[in-house]
Amino acid sequence: LTLTIMRIARLKLFMQLGGEQISSIGRGICVLLGISLEDTHKELEHMVRKILNLRVFEDESGKHWSKSVMDKQYEVLCVSQFTLQCILKGNKPDYHMAMPADQAESFYNNFLEQLKKAYKPELIKDGKFGAYMQVNIQNDGPVTIELESPAATVDPKQLAKLEKQQQRKEKTRTKVPSESSRERNAPRNKDDPSASSGAEGDVSSEREP
Amino acid sequence: LTLTIMRIARLKLFMQLGGEQISSIGRGICVLLGISLEDTHKELEHMVRKILNLRVFEDESGKHWSKSVMDKQYEVLCVSQFTLQCILKGNKPDYHMAMPADQAESFYNNFLEQLKKAYKPELIKDGKFGAYMQVNIQNDGPVTIELESPAATVDPKQLAKLEKQQQRKEKTRTKVPSESSRERNAPRNKDDPSASSGAEGDVSSEREP
Repeated sequence: LTLTIMRIARLKLFMQLGGEQISSIGRGICVLLGISLEDTHKELEHMVRKILNLRVFEDESGKHWSKSVMDKQYEVLCVSQFTLQCILKGNKPDYHMAMPADQAESFYNNFLEQLKKAYKPELIKDGKFGAYMQVNIQNDGPVTIELESPAATVDPKQLAKLEKQQQRKEKTRTKVPSESSRERNAPRNKDDPSASSGAEGDVSSEREP
Repeated sequence: LTLTIMRIARLKLFMQLGGEQISSIGRGICVLLGISLEDTHKELEHMVRKILNLRVFEDESGKHWSKSVMDKQYEVLCVSQFTLQCILKGNKPDYHMAMPADQAESFYNNFLEQLKKAYKPELIKDGKFGAYMQVNIQNDGPVTIELESPAATVDPKQLAKLEKQQQRKEKTRTKVPSESSRERNAPRNKDDPSASSGAEGDVSSEREP
């Protein structure tokens, strides 16, 4: 699952330019949801928890990143967004990694059900699956956060432990088994340019206009 | 660099709720730009090319994913968005991977300059760096694409070559030097759940409410 989460002041969904309004919320978060071929119920459950508990709002004293949408009892509007599963081939988006629409629709409906079950059904809104819509988002901040399951989530204690392991390794220069090196790199994966760098990307960009 | 690119029908930027409008565009793309600590001019140049050449519009015959913002002579509105460099620590966003504001501002201004130079200055708009704004986005579709530099870009020919290498490897079961295995994995990095899966993510999600 690849999610784009935006903190919003207001959101309105229309069926087309100047067309019928099909959904709307006030303060809350907008969740654009890209489902991949490989997603299972495990990824779904993980993301439902993340969405509801992600701290994107301030508390009463104005302290940022303190409260979740659930803490504030705000609304969530979800829209299925297969384009988040894009792989670029040169400059052309390719979507063969996205779950096909027929499977994705039941996955998406299940996702909505789980969200409603974990929060309040009346605070979970959605659009029309697969429809061409105009999504009028008032992004408040702006605040936009990208989540990919299951990584990019670091537990502070675990991180501290891994950093210690790393320091120890650098001191002793002993041979580290590949397992622990994989563990160490995993939480940084999304944010470490070296992890996602490859000769192909560079070669391909050289060939472009 | 982590970019959220949206295809838009209309976008208006306000300094605050009900406040002064500071920028707007009609049809085109919105680029939310997250700059990381490790970004250099190389990543900047790569992304400027990607933004201007990414095919998110249809052509005259209605064929999707055919035309870029430059092909259509549409507008680009950029907003700096450090929250895209978020790492989750439990449910709390952490931004220590984002470039600090003082450096990020000149990086961002340079990015705008390069965009203007590669396209047309009058078609590149922006907000106010670091300001709290209301970004009123009318996402057309919706179409939202996440780009991370420098990976997630696959040249079709290169991909075919790598797939052949992979098949050959599976047939012969010979030892593959780590270099070629790294190359093979690189383009899929963003989209391969196994590549970003790690024990930490799972452990941390188990601990959450």
